[in-house]
Amino acid sequence: MSYDTTGIEYFTVPNFKFAGGTSKDVKIAYRSFNPTSPKKVLIPTCYSGRINTTLNFTSGALKDYNVIVVAMLGNGESSSPSNDNDFPSDYSLRYQDCINSQYELLTQHLGVKSLDAVIGFSMGGQQAYYWAVMHGSGPDPFLKHAVAICGSAKTSGHNYAFLEGPTSALIASKDYDGGRYRQNGVKPTQGLRAFSRAYAAWLSSPEWFRQELWRSTGAASLKDYLHPPPGKGPHESWDAEDLLVLARMWQAGDVGSIAGNGDYKKALEGVTARVLVMPSKTDQYFPPEDGEEEVKYLKHGTFDPIPTIWG
Amino acid sequence: MSYDTTGIEYFTVPNFKFAGGTSKDVKIAYRSFNPTSPKKVLIPTCYSGRINTTLNFTSGALKDYNVIVVAMLGNGESSSPSNDNDFPSDYSLRYQDCINSQYELLTQHLGVKSLDAVIGFSMGGQQAYYWAVMHGSGPDPFLKHAVAICGSAKTSGHNYAFLEGPTSALIASKDYDGGRYRQNGVKPTQGLRAFSRAYAAWLSSPEWFRQELWRSTGAASLKDYLHPPPGKGPHESWDAEDLLVLARMWQAGDVGSIAGNGDYKKALEGVTARVLVMPSKTDQYFPPEDGEEEVKYLKHGTFDPIPTIWG
Repeated sequence: MSYDTTGIEYFTVPNFKFAGGTSKDVKIAYRSFNPTSPKKVLIPTCYSGRINTTLNFTSGALKDYNVIVVAMLGNGESSSPSNDNDFPSDYSLRYQDCINSQYELLTQHLGVKSLDAVIGFSMGGQQAYYWAVMHGSGPDPFLKHAVAICGSAKTSGHNYAFLEGPTSALIASKDYDGGRYRQNGVKPTQGLRAFSRAYAAWLSSPEWFRQELWRSTGAASLKDYLHPPPGKGPHESWDAEDLLVLARMWQAGDVGSIAGNGDYKKALEGVTARVLVMPSKTDQYFPPEDGEEEVKYLKHGTFDPIPTIWG
Repeated sequence: MSYDTTGIEYFTVPNFKFAGGTSKDVKIAYRSFNPTSPKKVLIPTCYSGRINTTLNFTSGALKDYNVIVVAMLGNGESSSPSNDNDFPSDYSLRYQDCINSQYELLTQHLGVKSLDAVIGFSMGGQQAYYWAVMHGSGPDPFLKHAVAICGSAKTSGHNYAFLEGPTSALIASKDYDGGRYRQNGVKPTQGLRAFSRAYAAWLSSPEWFRQELWRSTGAASLKDYLHPPPGKGPHESWDAEDLLVLARMWQAGDVGSIAGNGDYKKALEGVTARVLVMPSKTDQYFPPEDGEEEVKYLKHGTFDPIPTIWG
């Protein structure tokens, strides 16, 4: 891994009970900025995000806060298929597992008594919604504010279908070899590169492509952008099973699965924490229409879409 | 193939010169309805379309017309990798090859002196634009009207990028085996099914998924829709190389490559035929914004988007 791992710490939650039924020790990776500040903010990672590639806002809005950036289970820093041979291999990891493990980290290890905010982007935004439902209800909730940037309380059918594209490309690939790549001693590079290409047109917006903003990545042509040099593909450094376990958790995202008797709208109605819903206007997988609908069910919800063509 | 092949006829263009440089005989498959009518309309196939799965409008608007439905090169009915071992294997097939071969069919075989209209959907719409540029200029053009339904004069960067997803899924697949599937005596079923899944979320619109209109296909769940039974995948009956040769032609679509000195806008300015541009309001790969821009450069262009959530 070529990203900076400075400052990452680990906490082991003993005998952690997964939603899928397994019980085992899990390791939670995190980084704590300004740990002595009494104002506490949690920022979970997004898809294909690592702790030190996650915006922590400590040079801006959160400079006086204790910001705890936490790696969601499955991301390769916290317990994941890539670093734990006993990690549940049936793709049964769910968002509530992330929230439960993060809650243990905060309360059992870091002594946090309440959280001013959870701020998350994309899959991090979905975790913010889960946090709001799981620890943001009642007159004095543990969580005071949630900020869902480009997230959703329930993964839409279109989002589910889009994720089936890159995951299918990886799973069908020759070098993934039906999941036997590790026994084969192979990094499934071709599968990971196909995954990235099946993902690429979803990342940003049609206007982003119209303006050829792929040039800002240093690519000389669209073809070069889609076919970066060997070793430089956006998911090439990732473990295939980590990507799959996270994608399946994303597809299963639905706060109705943990509250509201299966109805995500009822689950949201129980939230008393303030929730800021910030979709991107051009997001192809968390479209603003979905966020606008979700915010209707929140007692203290604010809808504020971000005008951008970056998707 | 399980579709109806009734009424399909073939014409061989001798020593046909491809844009990529190859010269060889090519076979053009077509079907002619009401052949004695003096009013002539041409309808080329779309991606993954066959002659008899193409709407011919002969029970409605075109019932008094001689409607000629023609298979574009590469679709498996006209000359294609799947039925011609000498078909250019370098993915150099281009839209002008389709138009040139169709023009030969019309003028050398069917005795057509002028065309009232070319009507095409999706890749057929792109062929309609090419027809307009190649045979729709001057005071008395061979082509009088072109109707581009969900097409574009130049394939957008976003459209190019999206096509790289399903094609990458197929190419990386285990059973495609780097293109050796025929020597291996294998139908690359897993690759074709991965192709379909990487394509699925592009086909229709987010609202289509919100309303769960996949139910109209008979699927009981979204998962079932994305994972149809063996043999029922939407591209499973297709030859892998046919799909790839067509996708590469689509990606290269640009009327500026044959007129206007490389500028598609200038190429469109030369068209005197009337052109009706009918994008779908929710099309994710031929968005109405692109058609609205293109129609500005046409002397006799009409922009009339279709209000639908079917994409």
